[in-house]
Amino acid sequence: MSEFWTTEVHKDIYEMKYKTLKKLFSEKSKFQQVDVVETRGYGKMLLNDGLVMITERDEFVYHDMICHPALFVHPNPKKVLVIGGGDGGTAREVLRHKGVEKCVMVEIDEVVINACKEFIPQTSCVFENSKLELIVGDGVDYVANTKEKFDVILVDSTDPIGPATPLFGVDFYKNINLILNDDGIVVSQAESPYYEVEAQTSLLKVLNRVFDNVYIYNFSNLTYPGGLWSFSFATKKYHPTKDLNTDRVKESELEFKYYTPDLHLSSFALPQFMLNNCKGLIKN
Amino acid sequence: MSEFWTTEVHKDIYEMKYKTLKKLFSEKSKFQQVDVVETRGYGKMLLNDGLVMITERDEFVYHDMICHPALFVHPNPKKVLVIGGGDGGTAREVLRHKGVEKCVMVEIDEVVINACKEFIPQTSCVFENSKLELIVGDGVDYVANTKEKFDVILVDSTDPIGPATPLFGVDFYKNINLILNDDGIVVSQAESPYYEVEAQTSLLKVLNRVFDNVYIYNFSNLTYPGGLWSFSFATKKYHPTKDLNTDRVKESELEFKYYTPDLHLSSFALPQFMLNNCKGLIKN
Repeated sequence: MSEFWTTEVHKDIYEMKYKTLKKLFSEKSKFQQVDVVETRGYGKMLLNDGLVMITERDEFVYHDMICHPALFVHPNPKKVLVIGGGDGGTAREVLRHKGVEKCVMVEIDEVVINACKEFIPQTSCVFENSKLELIVGDGVDYVANTKEKFDVILVDSTDPIGPATPLFGVDFYKNINLILNDDGIVVSQAESPYYEVEAQTSLLKVLNRVFDNVYIYNFSNLTYPGGLWSFSFATKKYHPTKDLNTDRVKESELEFKYYTPDLHLSSFALPQFMLNNCKGLIKN
Repeated sequence: MSEFWTTEVHKDIYEMKYKTLKKLFSEKSKFQQVDVVETRGYGKMLLNDGLVMITERDEFVYHDMICHPALFVHPNPKKVLVIGGGDGGTAREVLRHKGVEKCVMVEIDEVVINACKEFIPQTSCVFENSKLELIVGDGVDYVANTKEKFDVILVDSTDPIGPATPLFGVDFYKNINLILNDDGIVVSQAESPYYEVEAQTSLLKVLNRVFDNVYIYNFSNLTYPGGLWSFSFATKKYHPTKDLNTDRVKESELEFKYYTPDLHLSSFALPQFMLNNCKGLIKN
Protein backbone atom coordinates (compact mmCIF):
# COMPACT_ATOMS: atom_id res chain seq x y z
CA MET A 1 0.00 0.00 0.00
CA SER A 2 1.39 3.41 -0.88
CA GLU A 3 1.76 6.29 1.55
CA PHE A 4 -1.16 8.61 2.21
CA TRP A 5 -2.07 11.58 4.41
CA THR A 6 -3.90 11.42 7.72
CA THR A 7 -5.73 14.74 8.06
CA GLU A 8 -7.01 16.61 11.10
CA VAL A 9 -9.52 19.24 10.01
CA HIS A 10 -9.79 22.34 12.13
CA LYS A 11 -12.94 24.45 11.84
CA ASP A 12 -12.71 24.83 8.07
CA ILE A 13 -9.76 27.21 8.41
CA TYR A 14 -6.83 24.89 8.94
CA GLU A 15 -5.75 21.31 8.29
CA MET A 16 -2.86 19.34 9.72
CA LYS A 17 -1.76 16.48 7.48
CA TYR A 18 0.58 13.69 8.54
CA LYS A 19 2.33 11.47 5.99
CA THR A 20 1.17 7.99 6.85
CA LEU A 21 2.83 4.67 6.09
CA LYS A 22 0.14 2.32 7.26
CA LYS A 23 -3.30 2.15 8.84
CA LEU A 24 -2.95 -0.19 11.83
CA PHE A 25 -6.40 -0.04 13.40
CA SER A 26 -9.76 1.44 12.49
CA GLU A 27 -13.02 0.79 14.30
CA LYS A 28 -16.17 2.70 15.04
CA SER A 29 -16.83 2.12 18.74
CA LYS A 30 -20.07 2.87 20.54
CA PHE A 31 -18.65 6.31 21.28
CA GLN A 32 -16.38 7.41 18.46
CA GLN A 33 -14.25 6.50 15.47
CA VAL A 34 -10.92 5.11 16.75
CA ASP A 35 -7.85 4.93 14.48
CA VAL A 36 -4.21 4.06 14.96
CA VAL A 37 -1.82 4.83 12.10
CA GLU A 38 1.91 4.54 11.56
CA THR A 39 3.18 7.96 10.45
CA ARG A 40 6.42 8.80 8.76
CA GLY A 41 7.49 11.51 11.20
CA TYR A 42 5.73 10.87 14.51
CA GLY A 43 5.67 7.13 15.03
CA LYS A 44 2.33 5.61 15.86
CA MET A 45 -0.57 8.01 16.20
CA LEU A 46 -3.96 7.56 17.92
CA LEU A 47 -6.94 9.53 16.58
CA ASN A 48 -10.45 9.74 18.03
CA ASP A 49 -13.04 11.03 15.57
CA GLY A 50 -10.23 12.27 13.35
CA LEU A 51 -8.50 14.34 16.05
CA VAL A 52 -4.93 13.46 17.03
CA MET A 53 -4.87 12.26 20.65
CA ILE A 54 -1.26 11.14 21.00
CA THR A 55 1.78 10.29 18.92
CA GLU A 56 4.78 8.29 20.06
CA ARG A 57 7.03 11.24 19.25
CA ASP A 58 5.47 13.91 21.45
CA GLU A 59 3.17 12.20 23.96
CA PHE A 60 5.82 12.81 26.64
CA VAL A 61 4.95 16.51 26.64
CA TYR A 62 1.26 16.14 27.39
CA HIS A 63 1.73 13.29 29.87
CA ASP A 64 4.54 14.99 31.80
CA MET A 65 2.46 18.12 32.09
CA ILE A 66 -0.92 16.66 33.03
CA CYS A 67 0.66 14.59 35.79
CA HIS A 68 3.81 15.94 37.42
CA PRO A 69 2.78 19.48 38.44
CA ALA A 70 -0.04 18.14 40.64
CA LEU A 71 1.94 15.17 41.91
CA PHE A 72 4.83 17.36 43.00
CA VAL A 73 2.66 20.11 44.53
CA HIS A 74 0.69 17.64 46.63
CA PRO A 75 3.15 16.66 49.40
CA ASN A 76 2.18 13.01 49.58
CA PRO A 77 -0.19 11.77 46.88
CA LYS A 78 -1.14 8.15 47.54
CA LYS A 79 -4.37 7.69 45.64
CA VAL A 80 -4.82 9.12 42.17
CA LEU A 81 -7.83 8.95 39.85
CA VAL A 82 -7.50 9.34 36.08
CA ILE A 83 -10.69 10.01 34.11
CA GLY A 84 -10.25 9.14 30.44
CA GLY A 85 -6.71 8.76 29.13
CA GLY A 86 -7.43 5.42 27.46
CA ASP A 87 -4.00 5.27 25.84
CA GLY A 88 -2.48 4.79 29.30
CA GLY A 89 0.16 7.54 29.15
CA THR A 90 -1.23 9.58 32.05
CA ALA A 91 -1.52 6.58 34.38
CA ARG A 92 1.97 5.50 33.30
CA GLU A 93 3.42 8.82 34.54
CA VAL A 94 1.34 8.71 37.75
CA LEU A 95 2.72 5.30 38.65
CA ARG A 96 6.33 6.40 38.22
CA HIS A 97 5.81 8.24 41.52
CA LYS A 98 6.86 5.66 44.11
CA GLY A 99 4.61 7.11 46.81
CA VAL A 100 1.47 6.47 44.79
CA GLU A 101 -0.14 3.32 46.18
CA LYS A 102 -3.03 3.07 43.77
CA CYS A 103 -4.14 4.65 40.52
CA VAL A 104 -7.73 4.16 39.43
CA MET A 105 -8.34 4.84 35.75
CA VAL A 106 -11.86 5.11 34.32
CA GLU A 107 -12.03 5.03 30.53
CA ILE A 108 -15.39 4.92 28.77
CA ASP A 109 -14.20 3.37 25.50
CA GLU A 110 -12.76 -0.13 25.63
CA VAL A 111 -11.94 0.08 21.93
CA VAL A 112 -9.37 2.81 22.65
CA ILE A 113 -7.80 0.69 25.38
CA ASN A 114 -7.60 -2.37 23.17
CA ALA A 115 -6.23 -0.47 20.17
CA CYS A 116 -3.47 0.99 22.34
CA LYS A 117 -2.78 -2.35 24.02
CA GLU A 118 -2.19 -3.87 20.62
CA PHE A 119 -0.36 -1.06 18.84
CA ILE A 120 1.02 1.54 21.28
CA PRO A 121 2.89 -0.27 24.09
CA GLN A 122 4.80 2.96 24.79
CA THR A 123 1.74 4.19 26.69
CA SER A 124 -0.33 1.05 27.22
CA CYS A 125 2.52 -0.70 29.08
CA VAL A 126 0.90 0.69 32.25
CA PHE A 127 -1.97 -1.79 31.94
CA GLU A 128 0.44 -4.44 33.30
CA ASN A 129 1.07 -2.40 36.45
CA SER A 130 -0.43 -4.02 39.56
CA LYS A 131 -1.03 -0.62 41.19
CA LEU A 132 -3.43 0.28 38.38
CA GLU A 133 -7.12 -0.43 38.75
CA LEU A 134 -8.60 -0.10 35.27
CA ILE A 135 -12.34 0.43 35.05
CA VAL A 136 -14.10 0.46 31.70
CA GLY A 137 -17.00 2.77 32.35
CA ASP A 138 -18.38 6.28 32.37
CA GLY A 139 -16.27 8.68 34.46
CA VAL A 140 -19.38 10.73 35.20
CA ASP A 141 -21.08 7.73 36.83
CA TYR A 142 -17.90 6.69 38.60
CA VAL A 143 -17.38 10.01 40.39
CA ALA A 144 -21.11 10.11 41.28
CA ASN A 145 -21.09 6.68 42.88
CA THR A 146 -17.67 5.73 44.19
CA LYS A 147 -16.99 5.56 47.91
CA GLU A 148 -13.25 6.01 47.38
CA LYS A 149 -11.39 9.27 48.02
CA PHE A 150 -8.40 10.63 46.14
CA ASP A 151 -5.49 13.00 46.63
CA VAL A 152 -5.19 13.95 42.98
CA ILE A 153 -7.67 13.61 40.10
CA LEU A 154 -6.52 14.02 36.49
CA VAL A 155 -9.24 14.61 33.88
CA ASP A 156 -7.59 13.46 30.67
CA SER A 157 -10.52 14.05 28.35
CA THR A 158 -11.04 14.68 24.67
CA ASP A 159 -12.71 17.91 23.56
CA PRO A 160 -16.15 18.97 24.87
CA ILE A 161 -17.93 17.34 21.98
CA GLY A 162 -19.10 13.72 21.79
CA PRO A 163 -18.53 11.42 24.76
CA ALA A 164 -16.51 13.93 26.79
CA THR A 165 -19.15 16.69 26.94
CA PRO A 166 -20.34 15.96 30.53
CA LEU A 167 -16.71 16.09 31.70
CA PHE A 168 -16.87 19.86 31.21
CA GLY A 169 -20.01 20.36 33.35
CA VAL A 170 -20.62 21.57 36.90
CA ASP A 171 -22.31 18.37 38.16
CA PHE A 172 -19.22 16.38 37.28
CA TYR A 173 -16.98 18.75 39.23
CA LYS A 174 -19.32 18.85 42.23
CA ASN A 175 -18.85 15.09 42.47
CA ILE A 176 -15.10 15.42 41.91
CA ASN A 177 -15.07 17.80 44.85
CA LEU A 178 -16.83 15.25 47.07
CA ILE A 179 -14.33 12.46 46.33
CA LEU A 180 -11.23 14.65 46.65
CA ASN A 181 -9.49 14.66 50.01
CA ASP A 182 -9.37 17.96 51.91
CA ASP A 183 -6.04 18.87 50.39
CA GLY A 184 -6.84 17.47 46.95
CA ILE A 185 -5.97 18.76 43.48
CA VAL A 186 -7.82 18.29 40.19
CA VAL A 187 -6.08 18.91 36.85
CA SER A 188 -8.11 18.93 33.63
CA GLN A 189 -7.38 19.14 29.92
CA ALA A 190 -8.36 22.76 29.25
CA GLU A 191 -8.19 23.24 25.47
CA SER A 192 -6.35 25.72 23.27
CA PRO A 193 -5.94 29.29 24.52
CA TYR A 194 -5.77 30.47 20.92
CA TYR A 195 -8.56 28.49 19.28
CA GLU A 196 -10.94 27.50 22.07
CA VAL A 197 -11.28 30.57 24.27
CA GLU A 198 -14.98 29.90 24.88
CA ALA A 199 -14.44 26.26 25.95
CA GLN A 200 -11.46 27.24 28.09
CA THR A 201 -13.15 30.06 29.98
CA SER A 202 -16.34 28.02 30.30
CA LEU A 203 -14.38 25.26 32.07
CA LEU A 204 -12.75 27.82 34.37
CA LYS A 205 -16.20 29.22 35.25
CA VAL A 206 -17.42 25.72 36.13
CA LEU A 207 -14.36 25.11 38.31
CA ASN A 208 -14.91 28.44 40.07
CA ARG A 209 -18.39 27.35 41.09
CA VAL A 210 -16.89 24.42 43.00
CA PHE A 211 -13.31 25.26 44.01
CA ASP A 212 -11.80 28.21 45.86
CA ASN A 213 -8.47 28.07 44.06
CA VAL A 214 -8.48 27.85 40.27
CA TYR A 215 -5.42 28.29 38.03
CA ILE A 216 -4.39 27.48 34.48
CA TYR A 217 -1.04 26.55 32.95
CA ASN A 218 0.36 25.89 29.50
CA PHE A 219 2.54 23.52 27.56
CA SER A 220 3.45 23.28 23.90
CA ASN A 221 3.45 20.02 21.96
CA LEU A 222 3.84 19.16 18.29
CA THR A 223 0.50 17.80 17.24
CA TYR A 224 -2.28 19.86 18.77
CA PRO A 225 -3.58 22.73 16.63
CA GLY A 226 -1.59 25.85 17.41
CA GLY A 227 0.97 24.07 19.61
CA LEU A 228 0.09 25.95 22.80
CA TRP A 229 -2.34 24.09 25.05
CA SER A 230 -3.62 24.37 28.61
CA PHE A 231 -4.45 22.42 31.75
CA SER A 232 -6.59 23.82 34.55
CA PHE A 233 -5.39 23.28 38.13
CA ALA A 234 -8.00 23.52 40.90
CA THR A 235 -7.19 22.91 44.56
CA LYS A 236 -8.75 22.85 48.00
CA LYS A 237 -5.59 24.03 49.69
CA TYR A 238 -2.36 24.16 47.71
CA HIS A 239 -0.87 26.83 45.51
CA PRO A 240 0.51 25.49 42.21
CA THR A 241 3.83 27.31 42.36
CA LYS A 242 4.38 28.41 45.98
CA ASP A 243 3.73 24.89 47.22
CA LEU A 244 6.06 23.17 44.78
CA ASN A 245 8.79 21.52 46.82
CA THR A 246 11.70 21.22 44.43
CA ASP A 247 13.55 18.94 46.86
CA ARG A 248 10.83 16.35 46.39
CA VAL A 249 11.43 16.44 42.64
CA LYS A 250 15.14 15.76 43.18
CA GLU A 251 14.50 13.07 45.76
CA SER A 252 12.13 11.29 43.40
CA GLU A 253 15.10 10.60 41.11
CA LEU A 254 12.65 10.61 38.21
CA GLU A 255 13.94 11.68 34.82
CA PHE A 256 11.76 13.59 32.41
CA LYS A 257 11.98 14.74 28.81
CA TYR A 258 9.79 17.83 29.27
CA TYR A 259 9.07 18.54 32.96
CA THR A 260 11.52 20.41 35.16
CA PRO A 261 10.74 22.33 38.37
CA ASP A 262 11.62 25.61 36.61
CA LEU A 263 9.36 24.75 33.71
CA HIS A 264 6.60 23.85 36.18
CA LEU A 265 6.80 27.31 37.75
CA SER A 266 7.06 29.00 34.35
CA SER A 267 4.12 27.18 32.84
CA PHE A 268 1.79 29.21 35.08
CA ALA A 269 3.04 32.53 33.61
CA LEU A 270 0.44 33.35 30.99
CA PRO A 271 0.65 35.48 27.87
CA GLN A 272 -1.23 38.76 28.23
CA PHE A 273 -4.09 37.72 25.94
CA MET A 274 -4.79 34.75 28.23
CA LEU A 275 -4.68 36.98 31.33
CA ASN A 276 -7.29 39.12 29.59
CA ASN A 277 -9.47 36.14 28.61
CA CYS A 278 -9.23 34.53 32.07
CA LYS A 279 -9.69 37.73 34.09
CA GLY A 280 -11.63 37.04 37.30
CA LEU A 281 -11.47 33.29 36.67
CA ILE A 282 -8.01 32.50 38.01
CA LYS A 283 -6.13 33.37 41.19
CA ASN A 284 -2.59 34.71 41.35
CA MET B 1 -12.70 32.58 -7.55
CA SER B 2 -13.51 29.77 -5.18
CA GLU B 3 -11.64 29.07 -1.96
CA PHE B 4 -8.48 27.00 -2.02
CA TRP B 5 -5.76 25.80 0.35
CA THR B 6 -2.39 27.44 0.95
CA THR B 7 -0.02 24.65 1.99
CA GLU B 8 3.23 24.71 3.94
CA VAL B 9 5.12 21.46 3.40
CA HIS B 10 7.34 20.25 6.19
CA LYS B 11 10.03 17.69 5.34
CA ASP B 12 7.66 15.22 3.73
CA ILE B 13 6.20 14.30 7.11
CA TYR B 14 3.73 17.08 7.78
CA GLU B 15 1.68 19.71 5.99
CA MET B 16 -0.12 22.75 7.32
CA LYS B 17 -2.98 23.89 5.11
CA TYR B 18 -4.77 27.22 5.44
CA LYS B 19 -8.16 27.81 3.82
CA THR B 20 -7.58 30.76 1.52
CA LEU B 21 -10.08 33.26 0.15
CA LYS B 22 -7.87 35.15 -2.26
CA LYS B 23 -4.34 35.42 -3.58
CA LEU B 24 -3.33 39.06 -3.16
CA PHE B 25 0.28 39.08 -4.34
CA SER B 26 2.64 36.61 -5.97
CA GLU B 27 6.06 37.44 -7.36
CA LYS B 28 9.36 35.67 -7.74
CA SER B 29 11.96 38.14 -6.48
CA LYS B 30 15.71 37.87 -7.02
CA PHE B 31 15.85 35.98 -3.72
CA GLN B 32 12.67 34.00 -3.22
CA GLN B 33 9.04 33.42 -4.06
CA VAL B 34 6.95 36.01 -2.20
CA ASP B 35 3.21 35.52 -1.67
CA VAL B 36 0.51 37.33 0.26
CA VAL B 37 -2.86 35.61 0.63
CA GLU B 38 -6.09 36.38 2.44
CA THR B 39 -6.94 33.39 4.64
CA ARG B 40 -10.25 32.50 6.20
CA GLY B 41 -8.92 32.10 9.72
CA TYR B 42 -5.73 34.13 10.07
CA GLY B 43 -6.27 37.33 8.08
CA LYS B 44 -3.55 38.21 5.62
CA MET B 45 -0.58 35.86 5.47
CA LEU B 46 2.93 36.43 4.07
CA LEU B 47 4.84 33.43 2.72
CA ASN B 48 8.44 33.30 1.50
CA ASP B 49 9.24 30.25 -0.61
CA GLY B 50 6.04 28.64 0.63
CA LEU B 51 6.83 29.04 4.35
CA VAL B 52 4.50 31.13 6.51
CA MET B 53 6.36 34.20 7.76
CA ILE B 54 3.56 36.14 9.46
CA THR B 55 -0.20 36.26 9.70
CA GLU B 56 -2.27 39.18 10.92
CA ARG B 57 -3.79 36.95 13.59
CA ASP B 58 -0.66 35.83 15.41
CA GLU B 59 2.21 38.10 14.36
CA PHE B 60 1.96 39.83 17.74
CA VAL B 61 3.47 36.76 19.41
CA TYR B 62 6.66 36.64 17.36
CA HIS B 63 7.13 40.41 17.30
CA ASP B 64 6.55 40.89 21.02
CA MET B 65 9.03 38.15 21.78
CA ILE B 66 11.85 39.06 19.38
CA CYS B 67 11.82 42.66 20.60
CA HIS B 68 10.72 43.31 24.15
CA PRO B 69 12.94 40.94 26.18
CA ALA B 70 16.11 42.64 24.86
CA LEU B 71 14.67 46.14 24.98
CA PHE B 72 13.63 45.75 28.60
CA VAL B 73 16.84 44.04 29.74
CA HIS B 74 19.04 46.73 28.21
CA PRO B 75 18.59 49.67 30.60
CA ASN B 76 18.58 52.37 27.95
CA PRO B 77 18.47 51.18 24.34
CA LYS B 78 18.76 54.14 21.98
CA LYS B 79 19.98 52.65 18.75
CA VAL B 80 18.57 49.38 17.45
CA LEU B 81 19.42 47.42 14.30
CA VAL B 82 16.98 44.99 12.71
CA ILE B 83 18.39 42.55 10.13
CA GLY B 84 15.62 41.18 7.92
CA GLY B 85 12.06 41.53 9.14
CA GLY B 86 10.82 42.94 5.82
CA ASP B 87 7.21 42.89 6.94
CA GLY B 88 8.02 45.68 9.42
CA GLY B 89 6.56 44.07 12.56
CA THR B 90 9.84 43.88 14.47
CA ALA B 91 10.76 47.51 13.77
CA ARG B 92 7.21 48.52 14.69
CA GLU B 93 7.61 47.01 18.17
CA VAL B 94 11.10 48.52 18.59
CA LEU B 95 9.81 52.00 17.88
CA ARG B 96 7.05 51.74 20.47
CA HIS B 97 9.87 52.14 23.03
CA LYS B 98 10.01 55.92 23.52
CA GLY B 99 13.70 55.88 24.45
CA VAL B 100 14.73 54.45 21.09
CA GLU B 101 16.07 57.32 19.00
CA LYS B 102 16.79 55.42 15.83
CA CYS B 103 16.01 52.01 14.34
CA VAL B 104 17.98 50.92 11.30
CA MET B 105 16.38 48.07 9.36
CA VAL B 106 18.27 46.20 6.64
CA GLU B 107 16.09 43.99 4.45
CA ILE B 108 17.57 42.25 1.42
CA ASP B 109 14.33 41.78 -0.51
CA GLU B 110 12.48 44.91 -1.65
CA VAL B 111 9.69 42.74 -3.01
CA VAL B 112 8.81 41.66 0.55
CA ILE B 113 8.74 45.27 1.70
CA ASN B 114 6.55 46.38 -1.18
CA ALA B 115 4.15 43.46 -0.84
CA CYS B 116 3.69 44.25 2.87
CA LYS B 117 3.39 47.98 2.19
CA GLU B 118 0.53 47.29 -0.17
CA PHE B 119 -1.26 44.48 1.64
CA ILE B 120 -0.25 44.24 5.31
CA PRO B 121 -0.41 47.73 6.88
CA GLN B 122 -0.68 46.09 10.31
CA THR B 123 3.09 45.56 10.22
CA SER B 124 4.26 47.82 7.40
CA CYS B 125 2.80 50.93 9.08
CA VAL B 126 6.27 51.35 10.62
CA PHE B 127 7.68 52.42 7.25
CA GLU B 128 6.06 55.83 7.86
CA ASN B 129 7.96 56.27 11.14
CA SER B 130 10.59 59.02 10.94
CA LYS B 131 12.84 57.22 13.46
CA LEU B 132 13.16 54.28 11.04
CA GLU B 133 16.05 54.19 8.60
CA LEU B 134 15.13 51.54 6.03
CA ILE B 135 18.00 50.14 3.97
CA VAL B 136 17.30 47.71 1.14
CA GLY B 137 20.45 45.65 1.09
CA ASP B 138 22.34 42.64 2.35
CA GLY B 139 22.53 42.50 6.15
CA VAL B 140 25.83 40.64 5.90
CA ASP B 141 27.40 43.52 3.98
CA TYR B 142 25.82 46.11 6.23
CA VAL B 143 27.27 44.72 9.46
CA ALA B 144 30.67 44.31 7.76
CA ASN B 145 30.83 47.92 6.60
CA THR B 146 28.80 50.22 8.80
CA LYS B 147 30.49 52.71 11.10
CA GLU B 148 27.42 52.90 13.33
CA LYS B 149 27.13 51.20 16.72
CA PHE B 150 24.04 49.71 18.31
CA ASP B 151 22.67 48.87 21.73
CA VAL B 152 20.45 46.03 20.52
CA ILE B 153 20.53 44.02 17.29
CA LEU B 154 17.57 41.82 16.28
CA VAL B 155 18.22 39.20 13.60
CA ASP B 156 14.75 38.59 12.20
CA SER B 157 15.72 36.08 9.55
CA THR B 158 14.03 33.30 7.62
CA ASP B 159 15.39 29.75 7.94
CA PRO B 160 19.05 28.90 7.20
CA ILE B 161 18.29 28.03 3.60
CA GLY B 162 18.23 30.45 0.67
CA PRO B 163 19.06 34.12 1.21
CA ALA B 164 19.30 33.86 5.01
CA THR B 165 22.05 31.20 5.14
CA PRO B 166 24.96 33.61 5.92
CA LEU B 167 22.92 35.04 8.81
CA PHE B 168 23.64 31.79 10.66
CA GLY B 169 27.44 31.96 10.21
CA VAL B 170 30.33 32.99 12.46
CA ASP B 171 31.62 35.81 10.23
CA PHE B 172 28.28 37.54 10.44
CA TYR B 173 28.31 37.37 14.25
CA LYS B 174 31.92 38.55 14.50
CA ASN B 175 30.83 41.69 12.70
CA ILE B 176 27.71 41.96 14.85
CA ASN B 177 30.01 41.88 17.86
CA LEU B 178 32.10 44.76 16.48
CA ILE B 179 29.11 47.04 15.93
CA LEU B 180 27.44 46.25 19.27
CA ASN B 181 28.14 48.65 22.11
CA ASP B 182 29.96 47.25 25.16
CA ASP B 183 26.69 46.43 26.88
CA GLY B 184 24.93 45.30 23.73
CA ILE B 185 22.47 42.45 23.17
CA VAL B 186 21.79 40.43 20.01
CA VAL B 187 18.60 38.38 19.64
CA SER B 188 18.21 35.98 16.71
CA GLN B 189 15.46 33.79 15.29
CA ALA B 190 16.64 30.38 16.48
CA GLU B 191 14.35 27.83 14.85
CA SER B 192 12.19 25.02 16.24
CA PRO B 193 13.48 23.11 19.27
CA TYR B 194 11.44 20.09 18.14
CA TYR B 195 12.12 20.01 14.40
CA GLU B 196 15.39 21.87 13.88
CA VAL B 197 17.70 20.71 16.66
CA GLU B 198 20.73 20.75 14.35
CA ALA B 199 20.11 24.31 13.10
CA GLN B 200 19.36 25.50 16.63
CA THR B 201 22.44 24.05 18.29
CA SER B 202 24.60 25.08 15.34
CA LEU B 203 23.52 28.71 15.83
CA LEU B 204 24.27 28.48 19.56
CA LYS B 205 27.74 27.12 18.76
CA VAL B 206 28.40 30.05 16.44
CA LEU B 207 27.23 32.53 19.09
CA ASN B 208 29.49 30.88 21.68
CA ARG B 209 32.50 31.52 19.49
CA VAL B 210 31.83 35.24 19.68
CA PHE B 211 29.90 36.03 22.86
CA ASP B 212 30.54 35.20 26.52
CA ASN B 213 26.88 35.02 27.46
CA VAL B 214 24.56 32.95 25.31
CA TYR B 215 20.98 31.99 26.21
CA ILE B 216 17.88 30.76 24.45
CA TYR B 217 14.19 31.36 25.10
CA ASN B 218 10.87 30.15 23.71
CA PHE B 219 7.50 31.33 22.59
CA SER B 220 4.53 29.57 21.04
CA ASN B 221 2.61 30.94 18.08
CA LEU B 222 -0.09 29.52 15.84
CA THR B 223 1.49 29.18 12.45
CA TYR B 224 5.02 27.83 12.82
CA PRO B 225 5.40 24.06 12.60
CA GLY B 226 5.06 22.57 16.06
CA GLY B 227 4.04 25.86 17.68
CA LEU B 228 7.04 26.07 20.01
CA TRP B 229 9.83 28.27 18.64
CA SER B 230 13.03 29.86 19.95
CA PHE B 231 15.09 33.03 19.97
CA SER B 232 18.74 33.11 21.00
CA PHE B 233 19.85 35.92 23.31
CA ALA B 234 23.59 36.78 23.37
CA THR B 235 25.02 39.60 25.46
CA LYS B 236 28.27 41.32 26.34
CA LYS B 237 27.15 42.15 29.85
CA TYR B 238 23.53 41.62 30.82
CA HIS B 239 21.69 38.60 32.10
CA PRO B 240 18.35 38.02 30.37
CA THR B 241 16.32 37.47 33.53
CA LYS B 242 18.34 38.89 36.46
CA ASP B 243 18.76 42.19 34.64
CA LEU B 244 15.12 42.62 33.74
CA ASN B 245 13.87 45.72 35.52
CA THR B 246 10.14 45.22 35.80
CA ASP B 247 9.66 48.85 36.87
CA ARG B 248 10.85 49.94 33.44
CA VAL B 249 8.16 47.78 31.85
CA LYS B 250 5.49 49.49 33.98
CA GLU B 251 6.91 52.95 33.38
CA SER B 252 6.92 52.37 29.62
CA GLU B 253 3.10 52.25 29.79
CA LEU B 254 3.21 49.97 26.77
CA GLU B 255 0.42 47.44 26.36
CA PHE B 256 1.08 44.01 24.88
CA LYS B 257 -0.99 41.06 23.78
CA TYR B 258 1.67 38.43 24.53
CA TYR B 259 4.61 39.90 26.49
CA THR B 260 4.50 40.32 30.25
CA PRO B 261 7.48 40.56 32.63
CA ASP B 262 6.52 37.19 34.15
CA LEU B 263 6.30 35.62 30.73
CA HIS B 264 9.68 37.13 29.85
CA LEU B 265 11.27 35.42 32.86
CA SER B 266 9.42 32.18 32.19
CA SER B 267 10.33 32.00 28.53
CA PHE B 268 13.93 31.21 29.53
CA ALA B 269 12.86 28.08 31.46
CA LEU B 270 13.43 25.29 28.97
CA PRO B 271 11.90 21.84 28.70
CA GLN B 272 14.31 19.09 29.70
CA PHE B 273 14.87 17.87 26.13
CA MET B 274 16.09 21.36 25.18
CA LEU B 275 18.39 21.49 28.22
CA ASN B 276 19.84 18.21 26.99
CA ASN B 277 20.21 19.42 23.39
CA CYS B 278 21.74 22.75 24.42
CA LYS B 279 24.05 21.38 27.12
CA GLY B 280 27.30 23.36 27.26
CA LEU B 281 25.93 25.91 24.79
CA ILE B 282 23.92 28.13 27.14
CA LYS B 283 24.60 29.77 30.48
CA ASN B 284 22.29 29.66 33.48
